[in-house]
Amino acid sequence: MAEYIESLSLLAEKFGRLEGVGKKSAMRMAFSVLELEHEEAEDFARAILDAKEKIHLCPICQNLTDREICPICADENRDHALICVVRDARAVLAMEKVREYRGTYHVLHGLISPMNGISPDQLKIKELLLRVDDPEHPVDEIIVATNPTVEGEATAMYLSKLLRPLGVQVTRLAYGVPVGADLEYADEITLFRALEGRREV
Amino acid sequence: MAEYIESLSLLAEKFGRLEGVGKKSAMRMAFSVLELEHEEAEDFARAILDAKEKIHLCPICQNLTDREICPICADENRDHALICVVRDARAVLAMEKVREYRGTYHVLHGLISPMNGISPDQLKIKELLLRVDDPEHPVDEIIVATNPTVEGEATAMYLSKLLRPLGVQVTRLAYGVPVGADLEYADEITLFRALEGRREV
Repeated sequence: MAEYIESLSLLAEKFGRLEGVGKKSAMRMAFSVLELEHEEAEDFARAILDAKEKIHLCPICQNLTDREICPICADENRDHALICVVRDARAVLAMEKVREYRGTYHVLHGLISPMNGISPDQLKIKELLLRVDDPEHPVDEIIVATNPTVEGEATAMYLSKLLRPLGVQVTRLAYGVPVGADLEYADEITLFRALEGRREV
Repeated sequence: MAEYIESLSLLAEKFGRLEGVGKKSAMRMAFSVLELEHEEAEDFARAILDAKEKIHLCPICQNLTDREICPICADENRDHALICVVRDARAVLAMEKVREYRGTYHVLHGLISPMNGISPDQLKIKELLLRVDDPEHPVDEIIVATNPTVEGEATAMYLSKLLRPLGVQVTRLAYGVPVGADLEYADEITLFRALEGRREV
């Protein structure tokens, strides 16, 4: 039946192109659009175009922004000598939720992955080196906060080798058991890393 | 951070208005829109407006369609003396997947629910009676295929009382254990209904 309602299946197909949206969810969302008020549907369409048009990369940290320079790079109260390197804009979102971090960011837009044909020159690493090289804004420490996966580790290693000779301290987020988790369900590697990184209480 | 990228959070908010989309999924989809090609984003926006503009209710069965009369009602090869009554357009979709049903449909656009303040006159029941009353297209049987929930049952009961006096056979989908399911996980009411409806093999 859905294929009979051409404009509905076309809309479902568009939803299905978004990351993590399966066929069933896409169809459910398409139906849901039909239940919106006419004005709401127009606002939705406009929001898609607006986001696409206005959002670009911050020329400093490469994070997404709809201003000339993103609000974090523009914030005088943040520590510009401290840079947290992350894979994507979503990771910035996660870090900012903590509200404890007062440094800046650098978004790589990917991780080094020879398996997927992603080499360092496809990431925003040149832009990071330019920041480290800028004599007006010296960088003291770079926290590599890429995911604790094979690609995340490889990227961290690569950056560390690249940056240490430039006199920058390179650190990595601590590994360990997630707060509130049950030890029983932690995998062995996490437990091993948690043990390795143990601290006196 | 997301609140800083105004156009992104606005877009996420629009996704969040759709049924079954939580805050996290909405944000993930908004980010995902940014990764679309410019043209794809424009197509997406247009698909929303198109669907909203072109899709209306079939004047006969009240199902969603972008034609004057929906393809099922317009199909001469289907049995117009048999009407399957469903809650919404999604149920039609589910039934059509079976490919065994060759009758027509009638979409109620809801179920009777005094708890939620939904009374029979808010549903497309008048339109169903008009179809039953049409001497040019006599109706033999109405299958009430509303969900096996309290509201679905109440609606089935109501329709049955309304339609039987008009000389129409009113039936209900069979209850039972879902094919491929494990008896261990079936609830007691389903098992009881399956037992009640047992058949000789």
